[in-house]
Amino acid sequence: MQRPSGRAPEQLRDVTITRQFTRHAEGSVLVCFGDTKVICTASVEAGVPRFLKGQGQGWITAEYGMLPRSTGSRMGREAARGKQGGRTVEIQRLIGRSLRAAVDLTALGEHSIVIDCDVIQADGGTRTASITGALVALVDAIRYLQREKMITTDPLVHMVAAVSVGIYEGVPVLDLDYPEDSNAETDMNMVMTEEGGLIEIQGTAEKKPFTDEQFAGMFSLAKKGVAELVALQKAALAQ
Amino acid sequence: MQRPSGRAPEQLRDVTITRQFTRHAEGSVLVCFGDTKVICTASVEAGVPRFLKGQGQGWITAEYGMLPRSTGSRMGREAARGKQGGRTVEIQRLIGRSLRAAVDLTALGEHSIVIDCDVIQADGGTRTASITGALVALVDAIRYLQREKMITTDPLVHMVAAVSVGIYEGVPVLDLDYPEDSNAETDMNMVMTEEGGLIEIQGTAEKKPFTDEQFAGMFSLAKKGVAELVALQKAALAQ
Amino acid sequence: MQRPSGRAPEQLRDVTITRQFTRHAEGSVLVCFGDTKVICTASVEAGVPRFLKGQGQGWITAEYGMLPRSTGSRMGREAARGKQGGRTVEIQRLIGRSLRAAVDLTALGEHSIVIDCDVIQADGGTRTASITGALVALVDAIRYLQREKMITTDPLVHMVAAVSVGIYEGVPVLDLDYPEDSNAETDMNMVMTEEGGLIEIQGTAEKKPFTDEQFAGMFSLAKKGVAELVALQKAALAQ
Amino acid sequence: MQRPSGRAPEQLRDVTITRQFTRHAEGSVLVCFGDTKVICTASVEAGVPRFLKGQGQGWITAEYGMLPRSTGSRMGREAARGKQGGRTVEIQRLIGRSLRAAVDLTALGEHSIVIDCDVIQADGGTRTASITGALVALVDAIRYLQREKMITTDPLVHMVAAVSVGIYEGVPVLDLDYPEDSNAETDMNMVMTEEGGLIEIQGTAEKKPFTDEQFAGMFSLAKKGVAELVALQKAALAQ
Amino acid sequence: MQRPSGRAPEQLRDVTITRQFTRHAEGSVLVCFGDTKVICTASVEAGVPRFLKGQGQGWITAEYGMLPRSTGSRMGREAARGKQGGRTVEIQRLIGRSLRAAVDLTALGEHSIVIDCDVIQADGGTRTASITGALVALVDAIRYLQREKMITTDPLVHMVAAVSVGIYEGVPVLDLDYPEDSNAETDMNMVMTEEGGLIEIQGTAEKKPFTDEQFAGMFSLAKKGVAELVALQKAALAQ
Amino acid sequence: MQRPSGRAPEQLRDVTITRQFTRHAEGSVLVCFGDTKVICTASVEAGVPRFLKGQGQGWITAEYGMLPRSTGSRMGREAARGKQGGRTVEIQRLIGRSLRAAVDLTALGEHSIVIDCDVIQADGGTRTASITGALVALVDAIRYLQREKMITTDPLVHMVAAVSVGIYEGVPVLDLDYPEDSNAETDMNMVMTEEGGLIEIQGTAEKKPFTDEQFAGMFSLAKKGVAELVALQKAALAQ
Repeated sequence: MQRPSGRAPEQLRDVTITRQFTRHAEGSVLVCFGDTKVICTASVEAGVPRFLKGQGQGWITAEYGMLPRSTGSRMGREAARGKQGGRTVEIQRLIGRSLRAAVDLTALGEHSIVIDCDVIQADGGTRTASITGALVALVDAIRYLQREKMITTDPLVHMVAAVSVGIYEGVPVLDLDYPEDSNAETDMNMVMTEEGGLIEIQGTAEKKPFTDEQFAGMFSLAKKGVAELVALQKAALAQ
Repeated sequence: MQRPSGRAPEQLRDVTITRQFTRHAEGSVLVCFGDTKVICTASVEAGVPRFLKGQGQGWITAEYGMLPRSTGSRMGREAARGKQGGRTVEIQRLIGRSLRAAVDLTALGEHSIVIDCDVIQADGGTRTASITGALVALVDAIRYLQREKMITTDPLVHMVAAVSVGIYEGVPVLDLDYPEDSNAETDMNMVMTEEGGLIEIQGTAEKKPFTDEQFAGMFSLAKKGVAELVALQKAALAQ
Repeated sequence: MQRPSGRAPEQLRDVTITRQFTRHAEGSVLVCFGDTKVICTASVEAGVPRFLKGQGQGWITAEYGMLPRSTGSRMGREAARGKQGGRTVEIQRLIGRSLRAAVDLTALGEHSIVIDCDVIQADGGTRTASITGALVALVDAIRYLQREKMITTDPLVHMVAAVSVGIYEGVPVLDLDYPEDSNAETDMNMVMTEEGGLIEIQGTAEKKPFTDEQFAGMFSLAKKGVAELVALQKAALAQ
Repeated sequence: MQRPSGRAPEQLRDVTITRQFTRHAEGSVLVCFGDTKVICTASVEAGVPRFLKGQGQGWITAEYGMLPRSTGSRMGREAARGKQGGRTVEIQRLIGRSLRAAVDLTALGEHSIVIDCDVIQADGGTRTASITGALVALVDAIRYLQREKMITTDPLVHMVAAVSVGIYEGVPVLDLDYPEDSNAETDMNMVMTEEGGLIEIQGTAEKKPFTDEQFAGMFSLAKKGVAELVALQKAALAQ
Repeated sequence: MQRPSGRAPEQLRDVTITRQFTRHAEGSVLVCFGDTKVICTASVEAGVPRFLKGQGQGWITAEYGMLPRSTGSRMGREAARGKQGGRTVEIQRLIGRSLRAAVDLTALGEHSIVIDCDVIQADGGTRTASITGALVALVDAIRYLQREKMITTDPLVHMVAAVSVGIYEGVPVLDLDYPEDSNAETDMNMVMTEEGGLIEIQGTAEKKPFTDEQFAGMFSLAKKGVAELVALQKAALAQ
Repeated sequence: MQRPSGRAPEQLRDVTITRQFTRHAEGSVLVCFGDTKVICTASVEAGVPRFLKGQGQGWITAEYGMLPRSTGSRMGREAARGKQGGRTVEIQRLIGRSLRAAVDLTALGEHSIVIDCDVIQADGGTRTASITGALVALVDAIRYLQREKMITTDPLVHMVAAVSVGIYEGVPVLDLDYPEDSNAETDMNMVMTEEGGLIEIQGTAEKKPFTDEQFAGMFSLAKKGVAELVALQKAALAQ
């Protein structure tokens, strides 16, 4: 088996995480998983949604979008069609849940953090890149809250990152790019903490059902990948 | 650990599958997982969506809805709000993918089958009940196509059913009802074939990340549950 | 003249009214007019719409929907199309007005009751079945308010029921089913009180204008039909 | 009993029907029922809606709107809210049905006529004024089709007009204006042919149910009113 | 060069401004620029939009619409399509900005004035006619506020009117009608104060870029046109 | 007078134009006017919109968007609100008209080019940066069509660029950034050809009407600015 990119099965793409990518947001990150490039911003907003008012806790929510020509052929602009597609909704809900799992919402106080993940170039794995980059933007937003004395403790419970795994020509592989993704037998997105705890798992057998053994192989690759991603997140945050 | 319902950890709720529940649809099933009740219909439609035209294959798609007062407090009607919520979109995409994985779309010919899953009473697990019931409605629609000589082979590749598993008070449990679901540490929906192959897996750690070991325990419960559900589907289809 | 169903001109279909059909709603009724089956729920909600605030009276409103495959060929789901159709809007306004006419809204206090009528199987007369069933659900919701000591008097002024009448092959007939409805010269829905007072009348000459005499014939059938329906409502409420 | 306007119970308001009110439409009428003023245009369009294609018949459809400040306090503009309200939908469906009942659609050939009724000033009875004026615009559009040799026969079967009747302070009255309409016990809109045949009847008991006798009184007033309106339509068309 | 209408290049169409055109609005004007006819109403509403609350100033906003058959071929009704088109949005923003420039919003107090411009017949220049007519309706609304003692000073800073200019067959012309507008090389809308100060300018080279010299010629025509329009506004307001 | 940025009145911000910024589009440009950064892509699509079919000419259209946190405080995502705002619509129409004015649409053949301008960071002048950058992306798309032998001539008629001018503290200034824009007395966007011909002009007096003289001063600055921008465009295209 030869991956289209020539990578080894357990090899991530080149991943870069650039902080302070744009100027206005409390956290702003450009994350690249190879040719997949996503701008992740974290915006601090006063107050919480109505269903949480007066409960002494904060909230984190996420929105996701793709520039119309981030993909091989142009997609219709969701704002022009007047509606977010099913895939978009699914992804932004996943990002939101994943980030909330990284944080003690009570320690956040009655503040909201809105995450925006906008894909400017897509080559597979936009949702895992989004989560991985957004966590860094989120940490910058938390630091902003601390600097501004809006919170006094650190609500971050653990680092969280995400990676895709799949079965490509019968072999478990890590971090699928688009040529692999569109031909994989199985595609699974795993969101984990830095300690290796699972937060979210979403797997789909595209061509045929997958077995326990294949599942175990993918799981193990995902752990390795997330560990490397968390190291990159920490390096970026240390600068 | 005591489940609120008094069930054993590996015990399904009472499951019933009633065929020909309504009169007009090619397949019409009322499926009950305990107090969760879903009407699943399968409608045969001529032709296929535009993106599939001329490719000599069929299509299966699904829509999901809840009656406004299927739940403890009334939810706004999506038709009145002018938009399906994110949860609805996520669920109907899952149902559609799960059913397509049960069928050889080429053997279906250029026919479409539209699945509607409408929850009339909710008590947890509406998406797994929907998939399990919809598969039976789908088989009835396939039988209709065969009876009408619209297809000559059997496009069904294998039976598919779905069940939820979770960690409740530290213990893996099968088929969560609402009181469990809203307090579980982890909630995972698994869609499997009758042979035990995984088709879809969607898991979320609601309260804390879950470990490999917990995952293995849930996986094993899910296999058992799906096997029982497939037996019930087959019994219903044999009547 | 022979009715397709073999019924006598002045004969209702078999009508059944099942209370407590689902578990969560304060009133929940399955009403069947022959093969037309509608789930009617009544939900008590705190407060009143903004335009009524502070006026010391309650409000009753209704929504109506059809499951996509309640009909012979599948209709598009209104939630998916993002908009309720004109017929839906017309019907739910009629149901709301009819029920409000049964109640002294001042005696209801500042409570709202939301009626949902969801057609699970359609065979003509869904709006008249909806009104007839919803009145029973409404009474159950009123009893709930009384039981919970939220109101101390009985706001119900009189029972209300609805039936369709029409001219079929020149003859006035009662309670049209779908084969009659689609071939009738005239179709009229009448909502009346138990005393025979008219609350709503909506008539359409489908094929040719109708005369005074035909009108009188239909009116008289409607009175008879509503009297029978009210008797069935009372019997259901007495159980 | 004294009507707010000083009219006798059986007296219409001053009604004027002005043809060729605007320049572009094939039929364009300003109709005034007292202070209620509606612009009714009839536009000829090529072809018919998809559900009628190839059936050798035409179609007539109607849309209705109110200028935001046609009423005492400004209503939100439906185009800005992104949705037509329930009342609008109900009215435009009524207008469409009423006009189709005036015409032999087969004699119309595969042409569509779109009616627009736009209320520029409202004082009660906008729907009856709309139908009465729109019929005249429709006749002008039919004459256009004849002049252009697009049809060779006259598809008009009979004149149609509409009027409201009600019970005001216990007395049946004809053609309610706004001060009466908002205080009437009962309000009924009747659409009739020039021969006195009923086409549509929509009645609502606003305050208390109405009796047979009251109904008969209103019916008789409506017949008288429609006869006068048809005379005015014919006079306008003769100019 | 011969204008299709036979007008001289610097000649306006016949312009009429009729106040109190409809009955309910605080200001109601029918403005005609030749065959272009627009109903402009000004509605006084209590309070201001949320973004202005508590700042001690008022607000003026505008909405614009065209009756479906105000044009040569029928346009779809925006309320039915569920969305205002881009041209509509552009025009109503222009009207709003132009009118706000005529008024000292602080002197208006915390009142809102909503302007509605509804085109009943279009023949080019609907936006300039709208602004010119709306200013008169606005003055009537201001007089209403003064009469009702809701304000004590005059917030009107200066009269404002608008006119189009263009290059038609190489020659600058004033106040384009539809036959000119659709063939002009350049079309420019200018909004000016009675003193000749520019408030808004929007110009588009339809066929080829325009030069400084052409621009100067159009500018000078616009000044002349606006001066005449302001005289007509003042004459109407003096009646 | 001191500009907030310290620039001279006639001085542009630092402008950079980076081609091939993303990988998939036929033309992809990152344009920066100081801190205003816009990704402009040009996508070639087969065929033309329906209203142009069979006329042997091409079409260019544009869409515009801002990332939610491209601005100082987060704006709601238009895709999530289900509707593009008025400002967005106005800007994308301006971009489309400006680019169509640069091209001989007949020479383009029956091809469409869709321009997307997405602002990733905003600091005033996003529409002028968009037009200036989009022209370069458009040229790259035209080169692609030529390389692919889809067209044989060069449809580009002249280069087009855009710049804002305004009156700041009484002095005409070129290329306003956000701090100037929000305090300017007047703001005008001018789109011109490389020969200095005007294509579009949109000016608004924010605080007080502007005079002929001020207008002349701004016009002259705009010419100078556009000349410099065209030189930068040409330099970028020469690389």
